[in-house]
Amino acid sequence: MLRSVRSSTWRQISKRFNSTSVAATYFPQEPTEPIFQTESIPGPKSQALNKELGEVYDNHATYFVADYFNSLGNYISDADGNKLLDVYCQISSIALGYNNPELIKTAKSDEMTNAIVNRPALACFPSTNYKQILEDGLLAAAPPGMDRIWTALSGSDANETAYKAAFMYQHAKLRGDKTFTEEELTSCMENKLPGASDMSILSFDKGFHGRLFGSLSTTRSKAIHKLDIPAFPWPKAPFPKLKYPLSEYETENKDEEQRCLYELESIIENSPSKIAAIIVEPVQSEGGDNHATPFFFQGLRDITKKHDVLFIVDEVQTGVGASGKMWAHEHWNLTSPPDMVTFSKKFQAAGFYFSNPDLQPKLPYRQFNTWCGDPSKAILAKGIYQEIVKHGLVEKTAKLGDYLYGSLNTILNKFPQKVSNLRGQNFGTFIAWDCADADLRNKILLACRERGVNLGGCGDYSVRLRPTLVFEKKHADVFLNILEDVLAKV
Amino acid sequence: MLRSVRSSTWRQISKRFNSTSVAATYFPQEPTEPIFQTESIPGPKSQALNKELGEVYDNHATYFVADYFNSLGNYISDADGNKLLDVYCQISSIALGYNNPELIKTAKSDEMTNAIVNRPALACFPSTNYKQILEDGLLAAAPPGMDRIWTALSGSDANETAYKAAFMYQHAKLRGDKTFTEEELTSCMENKLPGASDMSILSFDKGFHGRLFGSLSTTRSKAIHKLDIPAFPWPKAPFPKLKYPLSEYETENKDEEQRCLYELESIIENSPSKIAAIIVEPVQSEGGDNHATPFFFQGLRDITKKHDVLFIVDEVQTGVGASGKMWAHEHWNLTSPPDMVTFSKKFQAAGFYFSNPDLQPKLPYRQFNTWCGDPSKAILAKGIYQEIVKHGLVEKTAKLGDYLYGSLNTILNKFPQKVSNLRGQNFGTFIAWDCADADLRNKILLACRERGVNLGGCGDYSVRLRPTLVFEKKHADVFLNILEDVLAKV
Repeated sequence: MLRSVRSSTWRQISKRFNSTSVAATYFPQEPTEPIFQTESIPGPKSQALNKELGEVYDNHATYFVADYFNSLGNYISDADGNKLLDVYCQISSIALGYNNPELIKTAKSDEMTNAIVNRPALACFPSTNYKQILEDGLLAAAPPGMDRIWTALSGSDANETAYKAAFMYQHAKLRGDKTFTEEELTSCMENKLPGASDMSILSFDKGFHGRLFGSLSTTRSKAIHKLDIPAFPWPKAPFPKLKYPLSEYETENKDEEQRCLYELESIIENSPSKIAAIIVEPVQSEGGDNHATPFFFQGLRDITKKHDVLFIVDEVQTGVGASGKMWAHEHWNLTSPPDMVTFSKKFQAAGFYFSNPDLQPKLPYRQFNTWCGDPSKAILAKGIYQEIVKHGLVEKTAKLGDYLYGSLNTILNKFPQKVSNLRGQNFGTFIAWDCADADLRNKILLACRERGVNLGGCGDYSVRLRPTLVFEKKHADVFLNILEDVLAKV
Repeated sequence: MLRSVRSSTWRQISKRFNSTSVAATYFPQEPTEPIFQTESIPGPKSQALNKELGEVYDNHATYFVADYFNSLGNYISDADGNKLLDVYCQISSIALGYNNPELIKTAKSDEMTNAIVNRPALACFPSTNYKQILEDGLLAAAPPGMDRIWTALSGSDANETAYKAAFMYQHAKLRGDKTFTEEELTSCMENKLPGASDMSILSFDKGFHGRLFGSLSTTRSKAIHKLDIPAFPWPKAPFPKLKYPLSEYETENKDEEQRCLYELESIIENSPSKIAAIIVEPVQSEGGDNHATPFFFQGLRDITKKHDVLFIVDEVQTGVGASGKMWAHEHWNLTSPPDMVTFSKKFQAAGFYFSNPDLQPKLPYRQFNTWCGDPSKAILAKGIYQEIVKHGLVEKTAKLGDYLYGSLNTILNKFPQKVSNLRGQNFGTFIAWDCADADLRNKILLACRERGVNLGGCGDYSVRLRPTLVFEKKHADVFLNILEDVLAKV
């Protein structure tokens, strides 16, 4: 079913790109192109299994039922045996490819087994090897200047515990050396001031930070996430709407970013109660892959410093190499690091980094819960990180991203009525573009799936690429082939 | 260091108790009594490791650093090689004992490995075997009448997603066949009514339901959990304060429960906005192991039915056998099942059960997040459940609980100035008692630890037992010996 349509233009770019194949080392049996067993995807087995699943579990959002035993590398298998090139990867979560043999070793290790069967309440009975696991994995991967960690279970959980740290930090500053008052101790039990807090977390229009009650109050991407759910009256600020190509709109874009910074500072200055922290994604992913420049983010850092507001960077989706740096915020060259950086997806382990010990409460049982993370996930993150380092996968992703971006630029420019606003230059494989409208976007996604490429959308009419870190030129070429063909026909 | 003090009274009870030892089958090498390597616990290695851990991770609440490689069955090893009989079990979380050989097989299985290395975004790309994993494990263990499940990552997460289901359900009822209005769609993005909800979740005084922002708003056990954190203005109702022994205070206790039911109904009737659901623990664990009778819980069910309020039972700590039934709420013989039952700890997998399909939103991406649970944890829960069934561990726990309760009753009655209000008769090993004050409670816990028993507190001055499901008479006898000796000396 795969037609070999190849653009001569990006074939020329491709000749300049060279790299040894880590994927070939990991996955000698990886398919070289999508493999089809059924006329359409999802096929009959996938549909039947999904129907059965729906009898017990919410399956409204199923794309297709996947066969993870027969998925390999960058190719995900569905229940019918179709093998799709995966450029979405469990919403940006598979770092090293399906059934990576080194991760299988990690999963089969005695260290992992021990962590699984004896899951500890980490904050009461930490394991003898927990610090070492953190140091060899998550902490080794930490952003510059951040040497402390809190481990959590999901991106939402990471953000919410970071928010709690921010509130406790700001109140501790106000309180100084004093202990809790009797009024604080009793009023908090009634969910009332002054024991409960009236401080807030500020987030940005179109931002996404999770779907529990605190994180959802900062999520501003789509109504379907928020309808009917109680929310805190926390403020939001505008996020820059940049024009593309960036090189043509430098002045206008800087003005737009400056406008947003002024607006943010005005919101902070006029807030009826203290804003404890702001949270921002380096790229607003769920909200449409909206980028801003280092100028904007340095501005955020300056304003937060000036007003004693904590600066939380949500790297749940951008973190761990996809941007061509380990952490996307490293692209900004900030004059001082963020106060907290949250992470999850590609590490399959969640939590936040920080450097100021004061962000760790001084009393026990404040930042606390039964699990406080999961050593088995920290071990997995260690395994992922060590492979990333061993094979230079961040650097490889940066190079491959340049190739992918350049090729897409060429292809997309052929269809200016259909697709535009290519984003992610010099930003690894963290690439997206807009389609003329939602309907066309959805048609493109479905047509790509029919052609054996699993691709994801974001925002109202955007397509986002979220491949693994072992997505290489050969995979990119298969993808680009199919995409160009789809764009021509759709 | 272990002295053989044995009460002749409970030795007589012990003779009447007989059971084959599952523990001996699982753990032929399990210690027969605590083993000491250091003069005090935590020993020097544990202290040194904890100090190092504190450089990167919040270790304010550490009891001791545990060596999970050398823990076995009901005995937890610390970093110094001391082996303590564990009657606390990671805050009620180790179902089958440390390093259970059958769970090790589960953890090493290809099914587990596959789930670990290819962690799916379950609601988009569910695995071919996910329904089967659920059916053979979590769903097979479900409370009577509840055939649907939502999988989450922690007790807090389970409760919060249950709350979201409750809010969406109640608003869907109000909305009827209508779609979302434009005003709802825009206002929710500002965290404002009518798109955001002003409904609430009612919880009970001293209840504990987790520590994320929504769940923490329903937690009412201790100020240290809630101070400085924003909370929703949700109502709380009184929970009965029963007098012990129950047989002596039947009338007064019924009056107290009736008083609480009247008060609850009054709160519901006078609430300024709709109460979407109430949530209650079968035993308020963190809040002090506060029990109520089936009369009270049937009353809750009746009131919630009458006022169209959903009834959520939080079995995060009580669930999975410790109460002598699979689910503690089965003790109540309700006339109709709860609307949702949440679980976590002993299954090492979290989520909620429900039976009404309307509690599942009709649109995709409403009850949704990246992971939507974790197949590796569902596989672990399956492994745990199958061992529970194979060895009749719930029934065994019920019997052992009777022995333990009877023996404790005898022992505690010898020290009426020190300990009182024994709770948990006919309730498996889910047993607790009060101490004269917090100081004495803490002394008892520390003295037990020094004698090789790891024990936990709850509430202000209570001790709670949370042993495994393979805690047997031989373990109980070691514990009772030491406890009696400690109580005599403390």
